[in-house]
Amino acid sequence: MFSKNHLPIIAVLGGTGNEGPGLALRWAYHGYQVIIGSRLKEKAQATATTLNEQLGTDSILGLENGAAARKADICVLTVVHTAHKQAIDGLKDDLKGKILVDATARVDFRDPKPPSPPSAARLAQERLGSDVRVVAAFQNVPATALRKSIDQPLEDDVLICADDPADVEEVSKLVECLGMNAYYAGNLDNAIVVEGLTSILISLNKYYKSRSGSIQISGISKD
Amino acid sequence: MFSKNHLPIIAVLGGTGNEGPGLALRWAYHGYQVIIGSRLKEKAQATATTLNEQLGTDSILGLENGAAARKADICVLTVVHTAHKQAIDGLKDDLKGKILVDATARVDFRDPKPPSPPSAARLAQERLGSDVRVVAAFQNVPATALRKSIDQPLEDDVLICADDPADVEEVSKLVECLGMNAYYAGNLDNAIVVEGLTSILISLNKYYKSRSGSIQISGISKD
Repeated sequence: MFSKNHLPIIAVLGGTGNEGPGLALRWAYHGYQVIIGSRLKEKAQATATTLNEQLGTDSILGLENGAAARKADICVLTVVHTAHKQAIDGLKDDLKGKILVDATARVDFRDPKPPSPPSAARLAQERLGSDVRVVAAFQNVPATALRKSIDQPLEDDVLICADDPADVEEVSKLVECLGMNAYYAGNLDNAIVVEGLTSILISLNKYYKSRSGSIQISGISKD
Repeated sequence: MFSKNHLPIIAVLGGTGNEGPGLALRWAYHGYQVIIGSRLKEKAQATATTLNEQLGTDSILGLENGAAARKADICVLTVVHTAHKQAIDGLKDDLKGKILVDATARVDFRDPKPPSPPSAARLAQERLGSDVRVVAAFQNVPATALRKSIDQPLEDDVLICADDPADVEEVSKLVECLGMNAYYAGNLDNAIVVEGLTSILISLNKYYKSRSGSIQISGISKD
């Protein structure tokens, strides 16, 4: 979809929280132009400044979410799950024509339960309509993994759900440039399982006193 | 719960299908007394005979499901998913005082979708009442793995869900003696995610033309 010489511009919406900055930093490190989005432009700019300092660059911008979305080719939504629906509704016009990667897992860390269908990504697709191509990914990547040194590859596997497998290709590149394996796991309804896996991983972390539980896929050859 | 010198007796209910015989064979190989259960005693006996021939023993019995359950300490339910509810209701009295390991994933192999809550195991617990301790496990073990040579360890990870973690101990032994890692993944509601993983694995197998997709847990130390 994007030419070899033109990497897509990525906006990380709600990008000042636990997951967003770590992803944004890595994509910028791997040559993508990255914009941090936030409800408040000042907050986005503060996070962008911190990330630019870590990278020794000034390439990362900070903008209000809507402006960030409009400037981007691919938007990655990393808002806290309680803000998901409101964020989707507020960005409907800004997301037209874009790929929206929804990383939302509607799971309470203190009381992890599997969320009820439809999946967050299905819900987003229904509310945004067919002008936006929603892809679900990154719901299981632990924030602790993103705090690792930037030159250490992440080792998690990422299940990607989308109604159209063609939309998966660009998102797979965003996964694989971080050192992770990307697997196409079916349509947006399947994303309810991936969201639920977050509740399982939190349960495992609590029971086994870990912080880094993650899943890997085996027995699948992608060649 | 069971003394070191007394391994629990295992009944594999609905044990003549895709999953049951492979599990039964391996547990018998590892020294457990195993009973194959089926709706028809003759069918159970035929499967038991085949397995005994493979092992060069006559230790595996074949009985009608109810009789098999009554003789066992731990019952493992491996009926086809469309027969789940009926099997549970028909075995209510026979399962009293037992651990019931529910391996059911209510997923159609031709059209894999995540099942709707409640999980099969939660549904079983509700219908069986508190006289039966339901544990969910083995929903993701691919039938192809069970067709491997019996002296080859299985390499899948098994997520075990139960309302009482104390019930997980014996079931973990059934998992680990087969070479698999057992992880306690929270209460029976979480089993809806594990069931759903079966639909994800089938989707992966279809897309990547595999038959052996499975999941593994990483980042958790059980020591």
